[in-house]
This record gives sequence, C-alpha cells and structure tokens, in this order.
Amino acid sequence: ATLSAKNEGKGKRVMIVGGDGYCGWATSLHLSARGYKVAIVDNLCRRSFDDQLGLNSLTPIVGIHERVRTWGELTGNDIELMVGDVTDYEFLGESFKSFEPEAIVHFGEQRSAPYSMLDRSRAVFTQYNNVIGTINCLYAIKEFAPDCHLVKLGTMGEYGTPNIDIEEGYITIEHNGRTDTLPYPKQGGSFYHLSKVHDSHNIHFAAKAWNIACTDLNQGVVYGISTEETMIDERLINRLDYDSVFGTALNRFVIQAAVGHPMTVYGKGGQTRGFLDIRDTVQCLQIAIDNPASKGEMRVFNQFTEQFSVNELAEIITKAAPKVGLSPEVINVPNPRTELEEHYYNAKNTNLKDLGMQPHLLGDNIIETLLQYAVQYKDRCDKTLIMPSVSWKESGSKVVTHGNVKA
Amino acid sequence: ATLSAKNEGKGKRVMIVGGDGYCGWATSLHLSARGYKVAIVDNLCRRSFDDQLGLNSLTPIVGIHERVRTWGELTGNDIELMVGDVTDYEFLGESFKSFEPEAIVHFGEQRSAPYSMLDRSRAVFTQYNNVIGTINCLYAIKEFAPDCHLVKLGTMGEYGTPNIDIEEGYITIEHNGRTDTLPYPKQGGSFYHLSKVHDSHNIHFAAKAWNIACTDLNQGVVYGISTEETMIDERLINRLDYDSVFGTALNRFVIQAAVGHPMTVYGKGGQTRGFLDIRDTVQCLQIAIDNPASKGEMRVFNQFTEQFSVNELAEIITKAAPKVGLSPEVINVPNPRTELEEHYYNAKNTNLKDLGMQPHLLGDNIIETLLQYAVQYKDRCDKTLIMPSVSWKESGSKVVTHGNVKA
Ligand SMILES: NC(=O)c1ccc[n+]([C@@H]2O[C@H](COP(=O)([O-])OP(=O)(O)OC[C@H]3O[C@@H](n4cnc5c(N)ncnc54)[C@H](O)[C@@H]3O)[C@@H](O)[C@H]2O)c1
Ligand SMILES: NC(=O)c1ccc[n+]([C@@H]2O[C@H](COP(=O)([O-])OP(=O)(O)OC[C@H]3O[C@@H](n4cnc5c(N)ncnc54)[C@H](O)[C@@H]3O)[C@@H](O)[C@H]2O)c1
Repeated sequence: ATLSAKNEGKGKRVMIVGGDGYCGWATSLHLSARGYKVAIVDNLCRRSFDDQLGLNSLTPIVGIHERVRTWGELTGNDIELMVGDVTDYEFLGESFKSFEPEAIVHFGEQRSAPYSMLDRSRAVFTQYNNVIGTINCLYAIKEFAPDCHLVKLGTMGEYGTPNIDIEEGYITIEHNGRTDTLPYPKQGGSFYHLSKVHDSHNIHFAAKAWNIACTDLNQGVVYGISTEETMIDERLINRLDYDSVFGTALNRFVIQAAVGHPMTVYGKGGQTRGFLDIRDTVQCLQIAIDNPASKGEMRVFNQFTEQFSVNELAEIITKAAPKVGLSPEVINVPNPRTELEEHYYNAKNTNLKDLGMQPHLLGDNIIETLLQYAVQYKDRCDKTLIMPSVSWKESGSKVVTHGNVKA
Repeated sequence: ATLSAKNEGKGKRVMIVGGDGYCGWATSLHLSARGYKVAIVDNLCRRSFDDQLGLNSLTPIVGIHERVRTWGELTGNDIELMVGDVTDYEFLGESFKSFEPEAIVHFGEQRSAPYSMLDRSRAVFTQYNNVIGTINCLYAIKEFAPDCHLVKLGTMGEYGTPNIDIEEGYITIEHNGRTDTLPYPKQGGSFYHLSKVHDSHNIHFAAKAWNIACTDLNQGVVYGISTEETMIDERLINRLDYDSVFGTALNRFVIQAAVGHPMTVYGKGGQTRGFLDIRDTVQCLQIAIDNPASKGEMRVFNQFTEQFSVNELAEIITKAAPKVGLSPEVINVPNPRTELEEHYYNAKNTNLKDLGMQPHLLGDNIIETLLQYAVQYKDRCDKTLIMPSVSWKESGSKVVTHGNVKA
C-alpha cells in the first residue's frame, strides 16, 4: 500500500515537537505526505513513562528511528529526526538553526492529568517540562526564526466547567457599564491542565511583547487510531493508550469493551467534554499551519467537533458493540479526580470550521472500526492497568514507584 | 529604644518565607513584636542578585544572622532562622516538621519584573523558582500541616490594565443569559508577573482539591522604609532598592530626588497602579493571619490603599521636595517595558478595609520623611544604576553578566 501524491504543503518547513507521540506522529505523516518538509523533535520521554510505570501501547509501536526510516522507504518523503529535549535550550537552538522552521507545532509536553497527580515530583516535572519547554520555544522563535508561526497544543480542560458558555480563548465582558475583551477565565483541574493554562498566559504575553505569530489550540479529547498514513504499514502504526494513567475516555472504553472489561465510568458520569477524531486533529493542524496567525497575536481555536458526557460515551459503545459480537458492561467507580460530575457545558468551536474544517463525526461506523481494531490487539492488553490508580486527594510527596501504580 | 509590649498574636506560629526581604523582614518583626512565634525561611538569593549585578540597598543592611540576633537581644523575642530554598522539598519538609506552622506567609519569590526579562535564563529561573516554590508549599501543608493557612503574596500586576473595573480575584460574568463567578482574567506583563498568575491558578486548584485554607494577596507597589520595629536600631534597618532592576516606582523617585538625579518617567507616564505604605503591608499581613480563609477556599484580597499614575507620583514629589530643600527634575525616558501608557484603571480594595485595615495615605508628611531618609544615605547611591537597563523587547538567550546591566 502506498499513498496518492499530494502537494498542498509545497515544501513549507514544519518542526513537530513531540512528533513521536500519538497526535504528533499522525500529524508528521499527514504533513509529510502532503509535501511539507517535516522535522520531528522529541526526547522520547513518553516511551520512558511507559517503562517507568510498566505501561504499554495496545498497538505494537516500533522505535522512532525505524518509524522514520520506514516512512522514507515507503514514500520517498524524508522526515528529519532530532532527538532531544526542548527544555534544553542549547539543543533547541541548534535544531532551529539547522532546520530553519517556518512553523513549529508544539505537541511536546507531559500530557497526562493522572501522571501529573501521581506525586509531588511528577507534578513539578509536569509544570517544569511543559512551561519551560514552551518558554524556550518562544525564545528560540524570537532569536532564530522571528517569522516562524508557533502552533501550540493546549487543551479544552484549561477552561474547566464554568456555568456559562465557553468561548474560544477570549470573552467580551460588560462590567459596571464598561466593556473589554479579555482572556477567558481558566480553571485547570490538575497540575497538567494548569501547566497548559500557564503556557497560554506566557504565550499571550510573548506574542505581544515580541511580535510573534501564535496559535493556541485548545484541543478536546482525541479518539481513534488510524489516519490514512499510519495504516499503510504496521511499522507506521500509531500508539493507543488504554491504561488509567495515559488512556483517555473514549479510546479507553473501546478497549475495555474489546477485552471484556466493564467500562469504567468515574462517579456519576455526567462529566461532559469536547471530543474529536484523530483524523480531525491532523486536519486541524494543517489548517492552522496553512492559515497562520498574525504577528503579535495569540489566536485561539477550540479544537473539537462534538461534546459528550461520559455516560453518553458508554451508551454509544454499548449500542454499537453487538454489531461486532461484543456486549460490554458499565461500572461506576469512585471518582479519583476532583471535578464536577454534573454541570453545564457548552463550548464554541466555530473558528476552525470557518477555515474549512470538515468534521468526522462519531457514528456507529467509527465505533465499530475502533472496536474491531482493539479486538485485533486485545492479547497485548494488561488488564491490571485499567482500573484508576491515581487519586487527586492522595497525591503526596512520596515518590510513586512502579508497584504502586497498579490499582 | 525598645518597643512597647504587645501580645495580639498569643504565640501563633507563623513561618515567613522570604523573611530576609523588604516586606518579609518588616513583617517578621511586626509579628514577633506582637507575640507571634516567628520563623524566617529564606535562601538569601535576593542578596545574591545584588552581588551578581553589582547592586546594593541604599540602606546598609546587615546579615540575616546578625539581624535576628540583634532583634532577640533588644526585645527578648526570638525569631527562628532557617536558611534554605523552598524549591528544595526536603529542606521545606524538615522546616515544617520542626516548626509546625499554623500560618505560612509566602513572600519568598524572585520579585523583579526587569530581572525576569534580563535574559532567557533569568526568565526560566523566575518561573521555576516562584511556581515550584509555591507548589512545594502546598504539598508541605497537605502533608505536614493540613490546618496551616497559606498567605501567599501575589501582585496587582497580575490583572494587567483591563478596560473594566478590577475586582478582588473573582468576577461575576453574565454571558448569553447565564451567570457564573470565575477567576478574574489575568494579563501579566512580564515573566515575573506571569509567575504570580501561575501561582494563583495552582493555589486555586490545590485549595479545592486538598481542602487547604489559602489567601492570595494581590499587593500593589510598596513604598516607604520604616516600620516601628525596623527603626529601633540601625542593625534592624530594612533594605531600600533604588536601582532600575529591583527599585520600584515611588521609592525610586524619592531616592532620585534625594541624590539629584532627574525622576525617570517611563514613556508617557500615564501608567496607573495601586500603591501602599510598608506600614500597611505589615498591618494587612497581620489581618490576613488573624482572620484565616476557610479551608478549601482561595480568598483574594487586593492589597493596596491608593492608585496613582507615574506622572502623579512625580508631581507629588516635586511639590513636597522644596520643603526639604530639594528641587527635582523629571525626564521622560523611552519605556523599556511592553505596557499601555494611557489606560483606564479602577481596582477594588474593600476586603481588607472590611476587616479593619486603617490605611496610611500618601501625604506630604510621609514624602518629606522619605526624602530626608534618602538624603541621609545618599552617599551610598551608585547613580549609574538608576537609568533603565533591561528592555522587554531585547530579552534574549545571551546571559547578561554584570557589565551589561548598567545602562
Ligand atoms: N491526546 C489527547 O487526547 C489530547 C487532548 C488534548 C490536548 N492534547 C495535547 O496534544 C499534545 C500531544 O498529545 P499526545 O496525546 O500526542 O501526547 P503524547 O504523550 O503521545 O506525545 C507527546 C510527545 O512529546 C514528547 N515530549 C514531551 N516532553 C518533551 C520535551 N520536553 N522535549 C521533547 N519532547 C517531549 C513525548 O516524548 C511524546 O512523544 C500534548 O501537548 C497534549 O497535551 C492531547
Ligand atoms: N515590593 C513590592 O513593591 C511588592 C509589590 C507587590 C508584591 N510583592 C511581593 O511580595 C513579596 C516580597 O517582596 P519583597 O519586595 O519583599 O521582595 P524581596 O526580594 O526583598 O524579598 C523576597 C525574599 O524571598 C527570598 N527568596 C526568593 N526565592 C526564594 C526561595 N526559592 N527560597 C527561599 N527564599 C527565597 C529572597 O532571598 C528575599 O529575601 C514577593 O513575593 C513580591 O512579589 C512585592
């Protein structure tokens, strides 16, 4: 299997920080297939978290060097690989000087809320890794590539669950007879979500102070596994997390259903969030790159296509499962997080649609495909990793070692 | 000179992080004089910044060991001294275990906006030092002193200069027919101010998740030098910063007037901020400690007494100066910062007044006293340190060494 030739990117130089991760790998291939010149920057810490905690991807992902080599061999499109840490400015500076990016997509952060709440040391790591990495990207753009467009991944979780509509990044407030448009108030629900809130504030400032073009993508929960490019060879397969630390809502339920584990609804299950298909992640990234922000501006897009409550997700899967011969159960487990379990939720997401984004909605089709996919790899699943293992309330200074993470 | 006996504090155990600094030293003595059991925690990095950059306090401050010893000898009130870094959790944990604080006042951060904008390395240091120090304080309370009240110093600068009234920490927003009270939107104007914004978000989360009592004091610019206690012996004298990196608006103008340097108005001088006398800083801190926040709540007070524009400050000093034989000039220097120079500003500050705070307002009297005080030490002033030396726009990755800081 090979790909049809595409050339929408016309050689635009895009640096993908975190390009070995779930969203980053799919985005790298999507852009490379379309004629963009891609460099992956990654320190591979995500793989090391799996090693530390005894976790694994449901899908058998190969090493990043083999991934990149395979892609080049199969398609003739070379992706440059730079292994290193964006909190190391010397490394990042050299990467900028040699690659000369026109856009940098920054996926390269510690992205698990439970990981950030495991213990004090991981809370500190998460905020350091994410906040300092982003500050470094801003300084590197300022110094080495002032016209480079920063496309930064934030999360819808930055907003929390306010009792009013969630706007895209900014809100116009009328107060005591005066009006201003201000950054939307943020209420992150873990040290991870808060690190993204901090990033957004830092980027907002630096964009203005240094006249940098920035896009902050407040992404919803991503589901799915296959994009056109990751399917052409098993060595290009993407990661699929199912454990309670790195797995995310919809993907986790699908895998639980596939391996015969009850679907784990936390608390009452009324928690509502924005979701999107990974095929829309790569689409949105391309749109953001093709339509850069203005210099001096932090533009904000809410990057999700539909809202669901946890109970709705469980229901959707329960309904679709019999078509592939499965009959999953649901259990309500005590909520390990500090969050509202019943709340108003209405978030705007028109900016990306206005730029032409065509959503893949969550229909029975995609659920069936996902379930089949998960069934295919179900023997790789370690079921002891499924139940929640990190409690927000119990996060302490004692460093959690491998043994403690399993429930 | 000794002090009249006071005992409002009745042995309450208060840990003062940053107790060797400008606000922290005055607060430590104020509380110790009033019967609180005080421990100072400080890593003395503020003194090291002076060493690094060739700066000095206008007043001749002695070492912290001698300060504390002198205080004990003169008053019989012992202050415990713990020299160490709150970013070092092992140290902080031991301090908590041995002192068992009932309240912790956290002044211990890198607090200069220009210092945070000197270069990338100092930007990173500032956010690391401040954000991680505060996370550690939260974990230490959770683990070792769950009933301890955190009183954390933020800054009015967290709010920026919105075109609507500034409320105290939270704002009630009506939007599309629904209403919620949310954290007030923040727009920090330097990596320093942003570090405080990050702290506020982290504290807001941890207060709720871990049921901790927190007070966030958004303090205005502090002026003045003497509190009742720091005046009883020259070895107890407080620091007074006049250089362009650590000096703050009103104090700097007073010293410039005293040493015959024109008062340096940045840009148009319409920048308006909240101010307070250092005697009100110590008063406010005592009020916050005596009236703790509820557990699970981050209470926010805007801690300032009056608003002035930079031009108004220059005018007030120009008017008062002749009474002490001075006739200062004003110069407008190019603004090294990224900020609005003309803007709406109306900030609320009723919470502390409702708890009984009695402001010392900025009258001619205090200006005259301050000018005379500055004249007394004017020979210690290095005038080359006065002109602005740190440009927001030029902040880069090249580490600034001593020589570059002087204008
Ligand atoms: N997956 C989701 O559902 C989701 C939802 C919202 C937002 N996001 C955001 O999108 C981004 C990517 O998410 P993902 O699911 O692909 O995560 P991931 O963990 O699979 O990928 C992140 C990658 O970044 C790398 N990385 C982390 N820190 C780094 C550093 N300091 N230097 C260099 N590389 C570093 C990791 O090794 C990893 O390969 C993250 O920023 C995440 O917060 C993801
Ligand atoms: N001075 C002002 O006008 C003003 C205005 C608003 C807010 N504030 C805030 O009030 C607090 C005190 O301000 P200040 O003017 O007294 O500052 P300062 O620099 O004089 O004092 C801060 C003290 O904290 C110590 N410190 C810093 N990092 C530390 C760490 N990691 N561990 C232990 N000790 C550490 C320093 O050595 C110093 O003694 C700061 O948080 C500041 O942001 C001050």
